[in-house]
Amino acid sequence: MGLQSLEDVLQDQVKDLLSAEQQLIEALPKVSAASSSKELKKAFDTHLEETKGHLERLEQVTTILGMDDSPKTCKAMKGLIAEGDEVIKESGDPVAKDAAIIAAAQRIEHYEIAAYGTARTLAGELGHGEAQKLLDETLDEESAADELLTKVATGGMLRSGVNQAAAS
Amino acid sequence: MGLQSLEDVLQDQVKDLLSAEQQLIEALPKVSAASSSKELKKAFDTHLEETKGHLERLEQVTTILGMDDSPKTCKAMKGLIAEGDEVIKESGDPVAKDAAIIAAAQRIEHYEIAAYGTARTLAGELGHGEAQKLLDETLDEESAADELLTKVATGGMLRSGVNQAAAS
Repeated sequence: MGLQSLEDVLQDQVKDLLSAEQQLIEALPKVSAASSSKELKKAFDTHLEETKGHLERLEQVTTILGMDDSPKTCKAMKGLIAEGDEVIKESGDPVAKDAAIIAAAQRIEHYEIAAYGTARTLAGELGHGEAQKLLDETLDEESAADELLTKVATGGMLRSGVNQAAAS
Repeated sequence: MGLQSLEDVLQDQVKDLLSAEQQLIEALPKVSAASSSKELKKAFDTHLEETKGHLERLEQVTTILGMDDSPKTCKAMKGLIAEGDEVIKESGDPVAKDAAIIAAAQRIEHYEIAAYGTARTLAGELGHGEAQKLLDETLDEESAADELLTKVATGGMLRSGVNQAAAS
């Protein structure tokens, strides 16, 4: 069929995000379990609940757009999660491993920030105001999740790893 | 060996980025060739030249850090490029296809923004000022490339697709 219109592109973006969020809901409990810092575990547990809400919003968007709601396997998220799995399986120092987990998680957040940014813009241009609003709400939460991870990393965690290395 | 220290994490990030940039240098000419808009082609051609510079900077970083400079296959970039390839092969309306290409490219830019953000922060915390500066320079260029893509999309291209749909 191909991409005949911007509506097709928007629907493609939504289908990609449906798959991405489903994959993430499966992955996040493993990421939380592999984290050492309590603050980090909490951030992932909170984000898991948010992510379930993101999936619900996407389902509402498919209803608004009157589109088929079957997801389209998001290959990028598969790769991002595969990279995260490698980190989870790594042995080593807990602070170093947490830093690597945050690095992988922020890549995932940025994938979603880009994807929701595109979907939100397309929905707006195409006059789907209600869909745009829902996509915007999720975009804000993805950005906040990314900022929280930066805060966890730079608010003491990395510093403790640096001090630990200096003392050893 | 595992992740014994934050230095290990930083080196891992650099190795991941080496692979990501190499993959991107191969992919960008195909992305440019598949784009219809002249402005978009130009954006990708310019970014290809910048990307070659990013790879050079990463090689300088490996020298500064005194690390082995073999890349570590970046699975996430593989997935991101596989997703882009799907779009490249799509048939359809040129404006719709360009919009989908921009969507895929912005996901790639955001991957790099996240990755360079992490590497830059780690380099700074670990006192590698010169490496931090190089990583920062690339981060700025990746952010600018992302903004340029937003500008191409929203500065008339999407609007022309919307008007075209309304007139048909």
